[in-house]
This record gives sequence, structure tokens and C-alpha cells, in this order.
Amino acid sequence: MERHLDEELKELHKDILQMGIMAEEAIFKSVEALKNRDKNQAQTVIDEDKKIDALENVIDEKCIDLIARYQPMAKDVRFITTAMKINSDLERIADLAVDIAQRVIELSAKPLLKPLVDIPKLSSIAQKMVQNALDAFVNRDVSLAKQVFEGEPQADTLRNNVYTELVYDYLAKDPTTADRAVPLLLISRHLERICDHATNIAEDVIYMVEAKVVKHHPEAFK
Amino acid sequence: MERHLDEELKELHKDILQMGIMAEEAIFKSVEALKNRDKNQAQTVIDEDKKIDALENVIDEKCIDLIARYQPMAKDVRFITTAMKINSDLERIADLAVDIAQRVIELSAKPLLKPLVDIPKLSSIAQKMVQNALDAFVNRDVSLAKQVFEGEPQADTLRNNVYTELVYDYLAKDPTTADRAVPLLLISRHLERICDHATNIAEDVIYMVEAKVVKHHPEAFK
Repeated sequence: MERHLDEELKELHKDILQMGIMAEEAIFKSVEALKNRDKNQAQTVIDEDKKIDALENVIDEKCIDLIARYQPMAKDVRFITTAMKINSDLERIADLAVDIAQRVIELSAKPLLKPLVDIPKLSSIAQKMVQNALDAFVNRDVSLAKQVFEGEPQADTLRNNVYTELVYDYLAKDPTTADRAVPLLLISRHLERICDHATNIAEDVIYMVEAKVVKHHPEAFK
Repeated sequence: MERHLDEELKELHKDILQMGIMAEEAIFKSVEALKNRDKNQAQTVIDEDKKIDALENVIDEKCIDLIARYQPMAKDVRFITTAMKINSDLERIADLAVDIAQRVIELSAKPLLKPLVDIPKLSSIAQKMVQNALDAFVNRDVSLAKQVFEGEPQADTLRNNVYTELVYDYLAKDPTTADRAVPLLLISRHLERICDHATNIAEDVIYMVEAKVVKHHPEAFK
């Protein structure tokens, strides 16, 4: 039985990775669709989200079933519950990619307000953060998980740049640009939230590996 | 045994509520400290975070122990894993209150850049969102959970207002205001992340109550 659980946990590992690949792909495609003003590609992101939602449910049910069936030890319960948290962050990341895709469709009929500079950079950071967070999970790599946090200030700066430029140089000077500026503002916000979810995943990985002793101040337990 | 688990689940409920009350209090106090330029109150938020971290760990261990000890049915496993997710969102909310408190301490030696208008409003929305998300959990109230989402656009608008005002009216005109403007920018970002965590909690509650059938498109399962 023990061995069987081990196999199922390996499967779960793979499922989470698959979920991660799909979520990363959704971010990438949604921003490619923006760059190429490609309404069809944006629609693909929206359509494919059903698969991600379905996989999330499958993983979630599998986790609950594993717990109910195997009565795993605390260590394994912790792995499974971490997988559930990561699973839900990944599904939300994919939802944010859908939000981006919807903004791309809104924008596709209108001329682009300005060449995209900071949004693609922000998207690269978001993808990198998600990727590192997942690699950290797979390899139980705390130092890689900590690297994920380093993306946050860069992401904040880029989002703020996007915001300042759109508000200063466009909206304030010519309010009729709103229908082209606001979707870009929202896209930068969606990308920032993706970074936040990557941070959540990294925090969960650190917790899983180091458990309570290192997570918080140990003196609180004395 | 069944009855005993029920009692333990009720305890868990109470623990999560206690965690919620402490997190809400941390937000409230950190923003009060900002309003009153009260370094001591800010320090209290930082000091009290140890208790929240400790309670998070206690709850987390309790959940894992419950699962390992009682072999609960799927429905109860779902409740317990949801409690674990909410527990971790609440701890992060409290961490963000600590981040705010740290900015308050930085600011406390300097004259306030401007009267605070939007930050207290943003803070009220954040607190309301957290409170509603927790009430939704306690009462398994999906429609209240959905109300939590309504806070998001308001929170985004307020954060954007804070950003525009500080960048436009202060930083751009006089870069020497940076050491007083940047902490306020960060505080608005911390408050926005608190709103995001409240949204996460609300999503988890909806999922717990409605399970997979309603969460995503049911057609994906056909």
C-alpha cells in the first residue's frame, strides 16, 4: 500500500506539472495574442481554459480521494495539501490569462495606442516567476523558491510604469483614448496578479519543505 | 468517533474565525497607525504578528492531524483543506499588515506629504472584503462570497487614484518627495494584495460549498 501511495504521489506531481505547463502556455499565448493583435489566438486561450478547469477538478478530487483512501502520514498529507493549494493558484493564473485574452479581443478592432514595451517585459517576468515556482516545487528547492520573490519589485515597477505612461501620456492628454488605454491598464493588473500567485506557490513550497520550524519565528513556540 | 470529528471541526471553525479576527485587527491597526502617525501602534502590529504566525501553524498542524487521525469522508476532507487554504491567506493578510506597519515606521519621522483620503477608503474596503469572505465561510454563504468580488474594481480604482496623485502631483513635480511618497505607494499596493487574498478566500468558499459542479463549466466533464 505504501508503495502504491508513492506511485500515486508521483502521478500527482506530474499532474501539477501538466497544470503548470498549461497555465504558463495560457499566459504566453494571451500576451502573444496582444502583441500580434490576434483575436483568434486570444479566443484559443479562452477556449482552452475549460481543459485547465477540468484538470484542476480532477487533481482536486484525486487529492481528496488519496487522503480518504490511504490515510497517509502527516508528511504525505502535507505534500498533498500543498499540491491542492498550488493547483488552485495555477487555475487562477490561467483565469487571469483568460482575462487578458478578453481584453485583447476588445482591443483587436482598434489601432494600438502605442508600441508595447513594458507589458511584454512584465509578462516575461510573470512567466519566469511561475516557472521557477513550479521547478522549486518539483525539486523541493527552497533557494529557487526564494528567487521567485525577487521578481516582485521588478513586476511592481513595470506595472507602475505602464500605469504612469498610460495615464500621463494618453488618458490625461486625450480622454478619448480611454477605450484603448484602459484594457492595457487592466492587462498590466492581471499580469501583476499572476506574479502574486507565483509568490503564493513559492511560499507554499518553502513551507512544505521547511515546515513550521523555519517558516515563522520559532521563538513564538517557546 | 464521528461525533468527535464533528466537534473537532467546530473547533477548527472557531480557530479560523479567531485567525480572521486577528488578521482584520492587524489591517485596522496598521492603517490607524498611519493615520495617527503612531510608531508605537505600528510596532504593536509587528510584534503581534508572531501570535498570528503561531496560530497559523497550530491550525495547519491540527488540520493535518485531523486528516491523519480520523480518515474523514471526502466532504470533511474538503472542509479541512479549504480551512487550510483560508488559514494561509489570513496569515499572508497579516503579513501585509506588518508590511504596512513597517512603512508607517519609516514615515513617522517625516511630515505627512498630504492628508490621507484614498488609503483609508481602500483600507475599509479591504477590511470589509476580508470580513465578508470569513462570514461567507462561517455561514457557507455563496451569495455573500460573490459580494466579495464586487469590492475589487473599487479597490483597483482607489489604488490607481493613490498612484496617480502621488506620481503626478508629488513625485513628478518634486522628486525630493520620494521618501514620503514611495511608502504611501507601497501601502496602497499592500492593501490591494489584501483585497486579492480576500477574493481567494471567497473563491475557496464557493468551491467548498458548490464543489466542482458549479465551479467551472460543467460541460467540460461530459
